Amino acid sequence: MSSSYAPLQNDTFLRACLRQATDYTPLWLMRQAGRYLPEYCATRAKAGSFMGLATNVDYATEVTLQPLARYPLDAAILFSDILTVPDAMGLGLSFAQGEGPRFATPVRDEAAVAKLEVPDLEKLRYVFDAVTSIRKALNGRVPLIGFSGSPWTLACYMVEGAGSDDYRLVKSMLYSRPDLMHRILQVNADAVAAYLNAQIDAGAQAVMVFDSWGGVLADGAFQEFSLAYTARVLAGLKRDGVDGKIVPRIVFTKGGGLWLEQMGQLDCEVLGLDWTMNLGKARALVGGSKALQGNIDPNVLFAPPAAIETEVKKVLESFGAPHRDARSSGPTQIFNLGHGISQYTPPDHVSALVEAVHTHSRRMRA
Amino acid sequence: MSSSYAPLQNDTFLRACLRQATDYTPLWLMRQAGRYLPEYCATRAKAGSFMGLATNVDYATEVTLQPLARYPLDAAILFSDILTVPDAMGLGLSFAQGEGPRFATPVRDEAAVAKLEVPDLEKLRYVFDAVTSIRKALNGRVPLIGFSGSPWTLACYMVEGAGSDDYRLVKSMLYSRPDLMHRILQVNADAVAAYLNAQIDAGAQAVMVFDSWGGVLADGAFQEFSLAYTARVLAGLKRDGVDGKIVPRIVFTKGGGLWLEQMGQLDCEVLGLDWTMNLGKARALVGGSKALQGNIDPNVLFAPPAAIETEVKKVLESFGAPHRDARSSGPTQIFNLGHGISQYTPPDHVSALVEAVHTHSRRMRA
Repeated sequence: MSSSYAPLQNDTFLRACLRQATDYTPLWLMRQAGRYLPEYCATRAKAGSFMGLATNVDYATEVTLQPLARYPLDAAILFSDILTVPDAMGLGLSFAQGEGPRFATPVRDEAAVAKLEVPDLEKLRYVFDAVTSIRKALNGRVPLIGFSGSPWTLACYMVEGAGSDDYRLVKSMLYSRPDLMHRILQVNADAVAAYLNAQIDAGAQAVMVFDSWGGVLADGAFQEFSLAYTARVLAGLKRDGVDGKIVPRIVFTKGGGLWLEQMGQLDCEVLGLDWTMNLGKARALVGGSKALQGNIDPNVLFAPPAAIETEVKKVLESFGAPHRDARSSGPTQIFNLGHGISQYTPPDHVSALVEAVHTHSRRMRA
Repeated sequence: MSSSYAPLQNDTFLRACLRQATDYTPLWLMRQAGRYLPEYCATRAKAGSFMGLATNVDYATEVTLQPLARYPLDAAILFSDILTVPDAMGLGLSFAQGEGPRFATPVRDEAAVAKLEVPDLEKLRYVFDAVTSIRKALNGRVPLIGFSGSPWTLACYMVEGAGSDDYRLVKSMLYSRPDLMHRILQVNADAVAAYLNAQIDAGAQAVMVFDSWGGVLADGAFQEFSLAYTARVLAGLKRDGVDGKIVPRIVFTKGGGLWLEQMGQLDCEVLGLDWTMNLGKARALVGGSKALQGNIDPNVLFAPPAAIETEVKKVLESFGAPHRDARSSGPTQIFNLGHGISQYTPPDHVSALVEAVHTHSRRMRA
């Protein structure tokens, strides 16, 4: 397929995804387009609601580019929500002010599970249009990452109907009616694969699966109900983007550090890590086949700039010296937070973080 | 010191703590005296409030014994709260209906930190009196476990003033003013050691440190701000109880599986594990020196009894064959949940769990 997009000016992120040597450690921040930015809040106020923002191509493009105007980040990520897919299945997603997402029609019994199917992707056209619009607006500046929630993470919200602190309803179904849970996860996996493929066709240059709630599962249940369906998504993904270039696949399981070796078997290029994982240990376990993305605690951003710099150095040094042989692949890190940035983060502290990552990682290569 | 308490009739739990062979795998349940029991709710209604219950020796004794009247559990645990120590420091603990704990005077600045000191233990007399009363009422049936929150977990509540989903305030202090955080943790560690020693003097036969929030820390920060202060508590503890017997020390860090090898260096007898940790792997890492306590997902108790039995077998078999040589020590498991029991648990499902643990673990030794 030919592409009319502008050539990429900064491929540091994509190179690091493919474990190729880079001049410095690339970085982006989970939820980088968000409420900590006053310009984001202004656009959201115009849009009226979160979904009003996410479903409007112009607004979604505008907020995706906002953090790039402030900070020299090495990637952009589509502004959207992980729950667009179950919304398209007819569950009725809404975001009440000051609360998290909520589904009007949660999936809690056999009849509701039987009705689930892979949604008509036309219902998600607004997402694919946003991807194309953002890719054009980026004009080759940095690559664009598309994303989705993982099958298990979507299932958590679909059964609970909202966030949860104990996952009682979804785990009750898992332990009582594993057949129903497997059916939900199959539908979710096929829907997520189709959804990410459509984002790739619309212009996404990398894709990420957010398994935000994989870490709440018991050992054994994680492998059966989360990891297996993430693998099913990956098996269904296109390998090449609209410009014929390989599209790296990132999998992030919050709280998944204990299962890192098993995640190392996934057919993907990058594994995301939260702050509980020692990067040096992670590199020893899976660095021979996966790039690693992460993993500073977002709360570090509440400390003064000098302390932020100290913590950035600790994270970079815990990963260790990056490989520098341009002719072969080797361990690489993509710097990120271990979770989404807090809405209370002072924007100038983000500048300190970005500066520290770029400066210190260049120094480590000198 | 001599003791006038009745001789112990069931020492299975204490033997397993000391890695001695037992006829079956002993079990107790975190938060076993709690809201899932209608008789607990009735006593709490009489007491008027949670603290009314915890500070009244007769009520505390009554509710501690309630689960033992229903189930053949192998240990009792003092009915109290992990936050009694900061309450005695003057922070003003309360429990609003339907909410978690709250401190009237959180510790958020240098002046508040400077004022902190190890509290007069007389303010915690109600706890020690409850320990003695419960030990007498148990009449040797099973051993009594005393407990406290860990220095870090207490600090989380002391700074946040309540539960938190991001630990922003306590981590802001940790990263911005580590000197203040270290001072809080020193005071907490010395207070917790004195508190647990007084519980031991009052009759506790084992003690447990709940590091409920250790798992929210970043790698590196966990070792510096949680593990080091748990070690300080352990170093200050008495080794013998009022009857001259060794008092096993249990450390439980929720979400601490990634640091298990480092926790294996702690000077304690037992490590508690949540459900994310594979017990076979844990046994291989630290089973040579520590008994392991855990780790079924409390949400398993929402499944029907046959499914509960299946999951119990999985947990027992993941730990593997228990050692059976009465002349030497070896790997042992104390069965427990990976976290406190849910208030929504059907009480008859707990019967199914207890029965399955005792029956299947005897069968594994046959």
